[in-house]
Order: sequence, then C-alpha cells, then structure tokens
Amino acid sequence: LILKELRQITVLGLGLLGASVTLAVSRTLSAVKTVGFSHRASTRATARNLGVAQEIADDIVAAVRTADLVILATPICTFEQTFIQISDYLPDGCIVTDVGSTKGLAHKWAKKNLPSRVQYVGSHPIAGSEQRGVEFARDDLFVGADCILTATKSTDVVAVERLREFWTVLGSRVMVMDPLKHDKLLANISHLPHITAAALLNANNDNDLRMAGKGFIDTSRVASGPANIWTDILITNAENICKSIERLTRELKKLQAAVKNKNEKQIEKLLESARSKRAAMIEHKLKKKDIL
Amino acid sequence: LILKELRQITVLGLGLLGASVTLAVSRTLSAVKTVGFSHRASTRATARNLGVAQEIADDIVAAVRTADLVILATPICTFEQTFIQISDYLPDGCIVTDVGSTKGLAHKWAKKNLPSRVQYVGSHPIAGSEQRGVEFARDDLFVGADCILTATKSTDVVAVERLREFWTVLGSRVMVMDPLKHDKLLANISHLPHITAAALLNANNDNDLRMAGKGFIDTSRVASGPANIWTDILITNAENICKSIERLTRELKKLQAAVKNKNEKQIEKLLESARSKRAAMIEHKLKKKDIL
Repeated sequence: LILKELRQITVLGLGLLGASVTLAVSRTLSAVKTVGFSHRASTRATARNLGVAQEIADDIVAAVRTADLVILATPICTFEQTFIQISDYLPDGCIVTDVGSTKGLAHKWAKKNLPSRVQYVGSHPIAGSEQRGVEFARDDLFVGADCILTATKSTDVVAVERLREFWTVLGSRVMVMDPLKHDKLLANISHLPHITAAALLNANNDNDLRMAGKGFIDTSRVASGPANIWTDILITNAENICKSIERLTRELKKLQAAVKNKNEKQIEKLLESARSKRAAMIEHKLKKKDIL
Repeated sequence: LILKELRQITVLGLGLLGASVTLAVSRTLSAVKTVGFSHRASTRATARNLGVAQEIADDIVAAVRTADLVILATPICTFEQTFIQISDYLPDGCIVTDVGSTKGLAHKWAKKNLPSRVQYVGSHPIAGSEQRGVEFARDDLFVGADCILTATKSTDVVAVERLREFWTVLGSRVMVMDPLKHDKLLANISHLPHITAAALLNANNDNDLRMAGKGFIDTSRVASGPANIWTDILITNAENICKSIERLTRELKKLQAAVKNKNEKQIEKLLESARSKRAAMIEHKLKKKDIL
C-alpha cells in the first residue's frame, strides 16, 4: 500500500475543512504525523487547545519542510501567494493539493509557481456545512462525502492514485475530473443554487420573510453560508457562473412570459419538466444511496 | 360557543386538503356531520373505502343542501363554476369558504355569483406537502399550521369569527388579511420560490443533476409539487407573480454584474445581505416556535 510511505501531512489553514482533515487523518492513519498551520495566532492557539493536530507550526516554512503531503485549506484567492511562499521549501516528491471549491485557477497557479520536483493534484471534498471555524472540525466530516480530484494531461498519475487512496481512507468516494470540467459542473449544481438563494432573499423584504414557510426556508438554506468564502468561490469561477446565471434568467423569463400570457399549457409543461428532472435526480441519488 | 351551531360541513373536492378537512373535523368536532363530494367516481369510491367522511355524496346539490359550512377544495380555476352550480341550493346563513392558495379571484367570483343570504370568507390553510390525493389525507394536517383568512370590507365579520374558531379547533394559527394583500405576500414568499426552484432545475441538464449535492436538493425541493395545482396557483395570481419574478431577475443581474466585474466588495455585500436576511427570518421563526 502506497499510503504506508506517508509519514507527514501538513495542512495550511485551520478552518472547518483544514482542521477536519488533520482530525480525520489522526483517526484513520494514526501512524501519520499531522502538522497544522494558520497565519492567525488566535487560530493557532485555539487549534492547540483543541488538539486538532499533533503539531501546530508557527512558521509556514517549518510546517512544510518535512511534509509528504501538503494540503491548502485557505481561501482560493490566497493559493498563488502560498505556492510562491512554500515552493523553495517543499521536499522532493512531495504532493501538494488543496480543498478549494473551484479548481481551474489552482491548477494554473500550481503550474506557474510550484517546482517540477513536487506534484500538484486538485482535491474538492464536497463536505462542510454552513458552520465555519476550527471549533466545528470533525474527524468524520469526509465520511460518505464525494471528493472530486482534478487532473490535467500534465498531472502525475501516481500522485493522483495516492491522493485517491488518501481520501478513500478518510471515507470519501473519489472521482477524477478535468479542472475546467469541474468548474463548469460546480457552477451549475453548486454555485448557481447559492446565487439563486441569495437573490431570492434579496428580492424580499424582511416583513414578508417573517411569514415565509418551510418551502422558502429550504429554498434559501444555502445562502446562510459564509459570505467571504462564497465570494472567493464566485470570483475564482466568474466566467462559468455568469453563464449559469444567464441560463437561469432565461428559464425565469420563459416562466414569466407563460404566466403573463396565462398560457396554462406552457406553464404546466415548464413545471412538469422541472418536477420530472428533480424526480430523476432523486431516483439516481437513492440508487447511489447518496440520500435515504 | 358558536361552533355548537355547526351541524354539517360539506367539502367539495377530496384531494389531500379536502379529505384532510373531513378527517380533522371527525377527530375534533365529532358531533358535526361530514359530507364529501368529488366529481370523479373513482375518487368517491376511494374516499368511501378510506372512510374519510361520514357521507360521500354522488351529487353536488345533495352535498350542499343541508350544509352549515361549505368548503371548496378543488383547483381555484373551478371555483366560479362551482359557485354558479351551488348558489341556488345553499341554505340561508350558510358559510362558504375554500382552501385555495390564491384569494383575489375567489373573492371576486364569490361576490359575483353567490347570493347575499350566504357568507363567503376565504381560507388559506398553509399545509400540505408534495404529496397529493385522498390517500395521503391526515386528520392532523392542520395542526400547528398557519391559516390565513381573507376578508374585504364587505365580508361578514361574524362569518370570519366562526371560521376563525373552526380552523383554530382544527389546530391552526389563524390570521385575517385582505385578499389582495394575501396574494401579493404569497407571490413573494411561496410562489416565487416555486418558480425559482423550477427555473433552477430547467437550467440544468440531467447529467449534471446526477452530481448535485444536498444544497441543490434543498434549493429545488418545492419544485416537486404537482404541476397542475401549481399552474392553477400561478395563473390565478399572474400579475403579482410577474412582478416578483421581475424583482428576482433584477437581484440576479446585480449578482451577475458583480461576479463579471470580479467586484469582491459588491459580491460580499450582496451575499452578506442575503445571509443576514435569512438569519433574521430564522430567528423570528425560532421565537415564534415555527421551527425548532
């Protein structure tokens, strides 16, 4: 097993995701040393108090010097700067990955700034919650979650397989995808719902919202996610997201026209299309046992 | 207690809502005779088999002749025709209501077609589910649900108070509202989320949807509602809904422009506005104990 060669992982950024990685590694790969780093002293202090990693480093260079696997768990916008900061200090053969929700820019920045003696592969564990911060970290956050690895033609296939093994041990179902395909897909199924939920809330006044029922509460749930993390996601996937919003707006206009013209057949056709698309989606999820 | 004078209620239309009314009355007002009618022979047969009412009438006139309270639980589009059909046969002092999700047209049609010797008040019990049909009827469907009564200046205040008592006994929290205000409010908090969810599904292809996560599933949940019932709702509240869609589209355009320009501050401001609006809504709901 390749994982036997793994002696140290280093996580840069100790929020919900980063600290959950170190905790999950401690639980499932007890022989592996876990090192965590945060640029914030207060986060390092909390991380030490909670014992989320065996070692909390005060210095990013010290944190990565002896790592076999370095995982960036900071906002995506910081990746390029971090790559530049650590590139000279990464050991030969080290694998570098990240847990960001968009992947195109990460690959671009890695290619530009990381030395060829280390291998970059993207990771997108689809886990997390509306909560944030090291306090909410859990050693089972990745159990049962999908994890998309992203690789281009120039990505090292052995590094991909090692990372696949790594996330599988943490409990995730791994698939591999091209980063550009990943970003387009996620714009549609993850970033667009977030935008939609936010727009739905912003389109309503607070008095009306007090009367909202279960339907509205569910439809808007994702908009409770942290605004700064989502800003980071939207900015790093701007082009795809603009196209997704365009498609949504077109569908809204179709429904609006049908309602305005009281075109019963057309309204029912559009609603029935949506209903049956969702039924097919749910059926697929049930088959995959994604949902119960 | 005014409810003591209630001897017979008649429900026209035996779907989930209608049959739940007769079942709920049987449970909470056992002295009241429950009569149900459906224009479909197959529904009448099922309703008899399930025993959802003491009497299932084959004839709409026979069903209403001795009723103290007549409740329309058919699609809203059928209300005017039903009012015309029953108007000559309603006993003096009978209260007529309905359980439709839009109220403006119901009031208009009632005023035009019902005799002055009966009193019309609108009811909108905010209950139900994605399920439909007499088979899903439950005697506790209205427990803990909001029920909006709609009344205009010409609505009989005694009839409103009797209906308030009626729905309260069935377990609902009753409030009274002008029908036009009701339709505007519901366009925003109920019909718009439905449109939004449907458009979000229609904007995505089935392959991408297979990869959708919990966020998408929640955001799109309401679109699983029956297309024909929702067509009825949208058509009978067309003007308000078009305005609501317009406002949503404007909010989407704002977000799209901010993302396109990678205007970090503006994106974060819009997302934070949505997040805090939802937080205020949830806080209010928790205080009211609407949600736990």
